[in-house]
Amino acid sequence: MTDVEIPKQCKAGVVVNEGPDFKVEVQMVDVPEPGPNDVLLKLNCTGLCMSDVHFMMNDWAVPPMSTFGTKCAGHEGAGVVVKVGANVQGWSVGDRGGVKPLWDVCHNCEQCYTGRENYCQKGVYTGLVATGTYQQYITSPAIYTSRIPEGVPDEVAGPIMCSASTMHRALIEADLRPGDWVVFPGGGGGVGIQGIQLAKAMGMRAIAIDGGDAKRDLCKRMGAEEFVDFTKESDVPAKIKEIADGIGAHGVLVTAYQAYNDSIKYIGDRIGGRIMCIALPPAGAINLGTDPNFFAFKNLKIIGTLVGTMQDTAATLDYARRGLLKSVAEVRGMSQMAESVQQLRRGEVAGRIVIDFNKD
Amino acid sequence: MTDVEIPKQCKAGVVVNEGPDFKVEVQMVDVPEPGPNDVLLKLNCTGLCMSDVHFMMNDWAVPPMSTFGTKCAGHEGAGVVVKVGANVQGWSVGDRGGVKPLWDVCHNCEQCYTGRENYCQKGVYTGLVATGTYQQYITSPAIYTSRIPEGVPDEVAGPIMCSASTMHRALIEADLRPGDWVVFPGGGGGVGIQGIQLAKAMGMRAIAIDGGDAKRDLCKRMGAEEFVDFTKESDVPAKIKEIADGIGAHGVLVTAYQAYNDSIKYIGDRIGGRIMCIALPPAGAINLGTDPNFFAFKNLKIIGTLVGTMQDTAATLDYARRGLLKSVAEVRGMSQMAESVQQLRRGEVAGRIVIDFNKD
Amino acid sequence: MTDVEIPKQCKAGVVVNEGPDFKVEVQMVDVPEPGPNDVLLKLNCTGLCMSDVHFMMNDWAVPPMSTFGTKCAGHEGAGVVVKVGANVQGWSVGDRGGVKPLWDVCHNCEQCYTGRENYCQKGVYTGLVATGTYQQYITSPAIYTSRIPEGVPDEVAGPIMCSASTMHRALIEADLRPGDWVVFPGGGGGVGIQGIQLAKAMGMRAIAIDGGDAKRDLCKRMGAEEFVDFTKESDVPAKIKEIADGIGAHGVLVTAYQAYNDSIKYIGDRIGGRIMCIALPPAGAINLGTDPNFFAFKNLKIIGTLVGTMQDTAATLDYARRGLLKSVAEVRGMSQMAESVQQLRRGEVAGRIVIDFNKD
Amino acid sequence: MTDVEIPKQCKAGVVVNEGPDFKVEVQMVDVPEPGPNDVLLKLNCTGLCMSDVHFMMNDWAVPPMSTFGTKCAGHEGAGVVVKVGANVQGWSVGDRGGVKPLWDVCHNCEQCYTGRENYCQKGVYTGLVATGTYQQYITSPAIYTSRIPEGVPDEVAGPIMCSASTMHRALIEADLRPGDWVVFPGGGGGVGIQGIQLAKAMGMRAIAIDGGDAKRDLCKRMGAEEFVDFTKESDVPAKIKEIADGIGAHGVLVTAYQAYNDSIKYIGDRIGGRIMCIALPPAGAINLGTDPNFFAFKNLKIIGTLVGTMQDTAATLDYARRGLLKSVAEVRGMSQMAESVQQLRRGEVAGRIVIDFNKD
Repeated sequence: MTDVEIPKQCKAGVVVNEGPDFKVEVQMVDVPEPGPNDVLLKLNCTGLCMSDVHFMMNDWAVPPMSTFGTKCAGHEGAGVVVKVGANVQGWSVGDRGGVKPLWDVCHNCEQCYTGRENYCQKGVYTGLVATGTYQQYITSPAIYTSRIPEGVPDEVAGPIMCSASTMHRALIEADLRPGDWVVFPGGGGGVGIQGIQLAKAMGMRAIAIDGGDAKRDLCKRMGAEEFVDFTKESDVPAKIKEIADGIGAHGVLVTAYQAYNDSIKYIGDRIGGRIMCIALPPAGAINLGTDPNFFAFKNLKIIGTLVGTMQDTAATLDYARRGLLKSVAEVRGMSQMAESVQQLRRGEVAGRIVIDFNKD
Repeated sequence: MTDVEIPKQCKAGVVVNEGPDFKVEVQMVDVPEPGPNDVLLKLNCTGLCMSDVHFMMNDWAVPPMSTFGTKCAGHEGAGVVVKVGANVQGWSVGDRGGVKPLWDVCHNCEQCYTGRENYCQKGVYTGLVATGTYQQYITSPAIYTSRIPEGVPDEVAGPIMCSASTMHRALIEADLRPGDWVVFPGGGGGVGIQGIQLAKAMGMRAIAIDGGDAKRDLCKRMGAEEFVDFTKESDVPAKIKEIADGIGAHGVLVTAYQAYNDSIKYIGDRIGGRIMCIALPPAGAINLGTDPNFFAFKNLKIIGTLVGTMQDTAATLDYARRGLLKSVAEVRGMSQMAESVQQLRRGEVAGRIVIDFNKD
Repeated sequence: MTDVEIPKQCKAGVVVNEGPDFKVEVQMVDVPEPGPNDVLLKLNCTGLCMSDVHFMMNDWAVPPMSTFGTKCAGHEGAGVVVKVGANVQGWSVGDRGGVKPLWDVCHNCEQCYTGRENYCQKGVYTGLVATGTYQQYITSPAIYTSRIPEGVPDEVAGPIMCSASTMHRALIEADLRPGDWVVFPGGGGGVGIQGIQLAKAMGMRAIAIDGGDAKRDLCKRMGAEEFVDFTKESDVPAKIKEIADGIGAHGVLVTAYQAYNDSIKYIGDRIGGRIMCIALPPAGAINLGTDPNFFAFKNLKIIGTLVGTMQDTAATLDYARRGLLKSVAEVRGMSQMAESVQQLRRGEVAGRIVIDFNKD
Repeated sequence: MTDVEIPKQCKAGVVVNEGPDFKVEVQMVDVPEPGPNDVLLKLNCTGLCMSDVHFMMNDWAVPPMSTFGTKCAGHEGAGVVVKVGANVQGWSVGDRGGVKPLWDVCHNCEQCYTGRENYCQKGVYTGLVATGTYQQYITSPAIYTSRIPEGVPDEVAGPIMCSASTMHRALIEADLRPGDWVVFPGGGGGVGIQGIQLAKAMGMRAIAIDGGDAKRDLCKRMGAEEFVDFTKESDVPAKIKEIADGIGAHGVLVTAYQAYNDSIKYIGDRIGGRIMCIALPPAGAINLGTDPNFFAFKNLKIIGTLVGTMQDTAATLDYARRGLLKSVAEVRGMSQMAESVQQLRRGEVAGRIVIDFNKD
């Protein structure tokens, strides 16, 4: 591909007044220059994720974005390479690329060289330590950029970088198998719905728990075999047990921290059931555990997992290419970005919002 | 082998006054007749295990032994076949055989036919539902009797049936690998010491935590690479971390319920560490868990496990045959049986006591 | 369920003139009495399988059926329990049950107690050593009888006992994963078509190789994502490679021995591809292997597997219950049994024939 | 660490007259400048490996070294970092580092990001495409350089880079477990002896096959539980079977291509045995395989594997650090390098030769 013209400045959703009263303002910022090992991506889309809000509010136990000179949050970016650094091999201008919650890893530790680099202790968080995907042109280390295959729209690819990839990791880490019952509390939400689609694609049987008919329709359409409406069902664990062979679920993927309390009940009498901890509650808010007798007598496993790896992202993009992972996001333009983040913060967003940088 | 003479009656440690004030009395009881699928075993040894005490005291949430007409506790029996039932194949008089915590399983459920029969929901507990190994002659279902190989003394084979087999299961279930650091809180006790020997035999690196120089000597002699003396070490988790590459343990096998509270600390900063729940505390006494953030950020796993399978017992007996699992028990005669059980109950037994039926 | 009336005699497809010129004759034979650990099954259906022919011709390296006093071949039986032996637990008259290629195993060896009992060295072959499913009333060891769930018709359950269960084992043993490309040479045949359905149910991508439009339609309808017609395609391996990401298949399941020669080619440039040996050629007819350089440079694996386990059968029946494994057999009555076996022998049967004992 | 002085030129074993009549000449060559992502290593040792000879003779199906401008073979280098490139993170002057058969990989393909980068299709071979370890100062990509821990001498670390790491990969890939019997044909050779030590460290039971008492002593000292002397034993497979529980080996690791022919026999009657293809014979010289009936009836697996990964190298270096992998090499000075390579070529080298660059 011939060279593409790169502007000096680009659109970005910049955090203003970092902290509890932050807001996002669309501004023009300088387009960065890629380092020798980086590609420069022109993003078409970014997903909005609740952790963006936490970084901008700075209510998690991490230093503020400003410590790192970061003005833009975001870590679900999908776009196209517009420039490659001097030492980059295997990437060309015009290639499609995605940016994930980890902007880069060290590539030289045990986690990195065993395909578990999502746990690299030197990982660099996108939108906190490195400039995030709320900015249209960003740099990305070539060897840690995810290749987006033909046929996957950018608004699908964006949320895959974080939410779907994370769910794939959890399903793999749980060692769940075709035919297994998997419960998704809050399955109608932006993360759970990705898990439901993946579980279905992997031959598992998804049970979504959520409230209301709209959620029911969404979950069923996306592949949930069963839907349990907590607004109508008086005893949700009993219902889960009834559905799951009269025994209980093989796995529970907790993506909303309010669901931790009931998660173990969904296992019922299943031997070897797994609770997967994905949601990150406020520090100290939850203690997830139970009586060791229950662990022992049920062969119960509680397991934590954290974002997806390069491989999870690639596998998930491949499901999307095959049409098994559909768009679940509402796509909005730049003019709605600031308000959309506030809605997210206020808990008014049901599914996933994706901002299209090329749309006003 | 030609027929052996079978007496009408045999020695047995019978529970008297079942309940909080129980005692064990050595009595002569009738030798049972094996059913068509059973072998009749003449035991040479039985181990004494704390769960025997619980069954005789009836302080666990199970019906009393008398409900089942059971007069003898015990589930660590090693002996020899003296008679085979009419339909039994593959067993002959003279074969050595062992009896485990599960006297029989259903052989026809998912757990049974996947080699996870330790979780068969129809399992029959030895020494509770079926007559236990405190009685010298007992019946045992042929296909669920464990074969004791040549070269393994009965006083070694007895405790393998429960304690060593359970530890083998936990090491396998934890998916621990050669080179991994494994912590054994209370490693100098009767169960932990079996785990230490097995971990060593399997190429892992055992860290024992216990108190005093006698325990230190025992643990080191049995294969512990490191010993942490909690009576001398002010900060045990810090010491574990220092030993374990400055990171933390890959696994912690909790065999004493008092150790649950600190177990997670021994994982330190290790990614993917596993806590194995083996000890059964009084119901409701312990809640084992932690903040989901910790689960997620450390890829922590808490897993429960329960006794060993046929395969665990066979594998463990094979380690014993190779000399890698040594006798850790004090062997006593029948005349000491009653008092030994009381000592066990009072917590005065450090390691393992094995009763030799042929010794006075 | 109340007792059912059991006739003295029943219909059976008896082998006459065992050897190269054998034929099957429908005769009335005595209904057997179940042993104390057996159930007596009244079969509704039996599948016909090519190994039945081999046993009746006695052209495999096994003793003739008559050595064992066996008059009826067959090992794909589905029926209902009409009587239970004295020691049987967990089975009642009226329960549905199935009989597999292994009539019983020893239940007390390493293979048996690790869920790999399909490799028990004391396994008893149905229709060779034990009376087979060509006879309507047969006995079956209770703990090795497979439970047929509600909703699975007998004509579906029959072939599952052998062909589908075998394919499930091969897919599991190959460690194939959702999203993997799996090639089924002769996929339109009675065994291959079961594999295609299972692969689809397990999230894999099935490529069938067979000839003609009828086969194409069948394969596609049963879940093959791609069909390669060897009567039209000049370079089948190249076509497979093109389909499979331009790389090659992750797995090849060889169910017809003529396909061994090309099987390695279907792997193409895939790293870590697996060839699964399922078909049993005449002894000495085939040498399956390749240059160790190819093994090494492609991380190639050639793996043999043999019938399914109890667990494979249960898992496969569950897929059938969910409607994911459909009937692929032509159901015929007893009057057609003799001729059907001859057609099978002459290679004139495309899919699977099931004989309905209750149909004339 | 302060800067170290780097000479303009350094010693190197340069290939002269590449092809069938090649020889190695020690010459002074220019010290290379590390690229921005490289470290410059001053090697203390290099192992000599038979593939070096193949590259210099150019009798494998790869282009000649000169195509790539490569003058020095070798891929078992151990040394110290003397300079770091501009973009390198995590490496400092003075750190110890090793160079493996793969000088670099692409870091951005499925193999690379799943910890199977030994199969990266863009891997760059050391001593063929990139300058090899016969040259004292060479560059190495920082993120693909292996860290050598304190306590591992360079003459041990050198051969680990290739031979030991390869054997570790094969043991892992074979999924062999503690207690399993593993056969090492030619176990007294430079590669096999590493496998024996690793098998022992991982709790497996090594059986070495080799000839003569010197080999016997070496193998036993290094951890072989049994030694079979093919010069004395008339029926080696029968002897293996006898040793291995009267059944046969769980695994056979073939490191000399002459051993392929007998390798399957060593499996005997073991169900699920694995033949690991490691040795690379001349193209077309060997066809490794057998009757599919044998594959099926024994659950036999033939698997190919190729060099070790970063993780294998790290794990193996850790065993060395713990003293479980000892020096097996004869250390020689530079003045013996040329002749040593000729001896290797003529098949006159029994174990491993390591050249010490700092020794004359």
